[in-house]
Amino acid sequence: MADNHDAKAKDSRDAWLPSLITETPQEGFALAITLSQKGVAVTQPDAEMRKEKRPEYAQDPDSLIAVSHVIATHFQTVAAANGYWRE
Amino acid sequence: MADNHDAKAKDSRDAWLPSLITETPQEGFALAITLSQKGVAVTQPDAEMRKEKRPEYAQDPDSLIAVSHVIATHFQTVAAANGYWRE
Amino acid sequence: MADNHDAKAKDSRDAWLPSLITETPQEGFALAITLSQKGVAVTQPDAEMRKEKRPEYAQDPDSLIAVSHVIATHFQTVAAANGYWRE
Amino acid sequence: MADNHDAKAKDSRDAWLPSLITETPQEGFALAITLSQKGVAVTQPDAEMRKEKRPEYAQDPDSLIAVSHVIATHFQTVAAANGYWRE
Amino acid sequence: MADNHDAKAKDSRDAWLPSLITETPQEGFALAITLSQKGVAVTQPDAEMRKEKRPEYAQDPDSLIAVSHVIATHFQTVAAANGYWRE
Amino acid sequence: MADNHDAKAKDSRDAWLPSLITETPQEGFALAITLSQKGVAVTQPDAEMRKEKRPEYAQDPDSLIAVSHVIATHFQTVAAANGYWRE
Repeated sequence: MADNHDAKAKDSRDAWLPSLITETPQEGFALAITLSQKGVAVTQPDAEMRKEKRPEYAQDPDSLIAVSHVIATHFQTVAAANGYWRE
Repeated sequence: MADNHDAKAKDSRDAWLPSLITETPQEGFALAITLSQKGVAVTQPDAEMRKEKRPEYAQDPDSLIAVSHVIATHFQTVAAANGYWRE
Repeated sequence: MADNHDAKAKDSRDAWLPSLITETPQEGFALAITLSQKGVAVTQPDAEMRKEKRPEYAQDPDSLIAVSHVIATHFQTVAAANGYWRE
Repeated sequence: MADNHDAKAKDSRDAWLPSLITETPQEGFALAITLSQKGVAVTQPDAEMRKEKRPEYAQDPDSLIAVSHVIATHFQTVAAANGYWRE
Repeated sequence: MADNHDAKAKDSRDAWLPSLITETPQEGFALAITLSQKGVAVTQPDAEMRKEKRPEYAQDPDSLIAVSHVIATHFQTVAAANGYWRE
Repeated sequence: MADNHDAKAKDSRDAWLPSLITETPQEGFALAITLSQKGVAVTQPDAEMRKEKRPEYAQDPDSLIAVSHVIATHFQTVAAANGYWRE
């Protein structure tokens, strides 16, 4: 598992966030989701472990709402970065 | 259920967020609700499952307050995008 | 109850948020309260049910603090919309 | 108690928030505290009840931290309103 | 203990927040910590009590994360006040 | 352990946050992670203790989501400081 962990750690050093700019609000929302998930992977870098836990929290309304809150926070950032896609 | 899931996943690829601009503050609030719900659907894409859980958390004041907080966060974004509908 | 629910749903289609602009900071705070309550009513549209739950969460300090947090989030939006009522 | 409640409700109609502008950051922090407490009083207008609960949550670290978070949110608003007291 | 409480209350009337401006981001972070702690002291002014509770919540990951969130919220304010220490 | 604690306290006095400016969004995200961790270390300065607790909260979805929320809050600050890395 240590190896697995090292592999993940290495992956996360790779470029995954070249820019906050997106074509559309919807792509910006998708980026907010990615940022939320990265924020979880920081503390639990083992993707297998995260996958294993998913059925548990995916059925817990409070967890689902909390995830939605994190996405909302990142979406604020991404939307501001894109001038709210106004034009 | 896997098929069902795939169908949902496909739906969510469709355009649902063409713009953050709305005519009125109230439509902006409705958009904030949509964004909150999308943030939940990301983790639990099965609409049947979400519907099934609803009676449970709809009677839990803390869950209701938490949902309201997520909506408030998105409403900040939508309101800023619309220049607060000032004129 | 379904009828009741439909009636509520209809109510919420009515205009309740024509503007974020208020005369005074205090009216802005009142609007933030309204927005918080609307965010709860979205998930639990049955006003009777909400009323029934009130004595329960109105005595739970953590629920009271959480409500206050939602109001604070909306007050940020309303205050910004009003240029903080600076002049 | 209903009378008591009515009296409180009347009190809260009185002017308590004429402005977000304060002389100093520290007065701004005090205003953020007031706003947090008002947000609690909205749901639990009975001051006696709030006082009674205080010893309970004043010893619960998580409640104390949550209150501090609400104050922080309001302080963002008050600080922005005052241009961060920069000059 | 009432006397003790009065003493604390008096202390908190003293000037502790003359400005949000700091020389460096790191001093700004330290100020955000102070603001978070002041927000706790508002509800629990007894420093002895706060100290007594510390070993308890300092070992609870969720409390630690919640404190970190409050600091993050205040750091937003302090950073904005300082123009993000850009030059 | 007291010595250990003192050593940590001394470490945290060292410069660790010279600037909020980063080359890329991804480095900004890494800085947001550092800020989140510093916010935890404030209350629990014993690095051994923090490490010991990690397996526990790294398997608790709600803790992971809460950490991700703190990172999101700091990322807002860092992104704004960097003008969202727009050019």
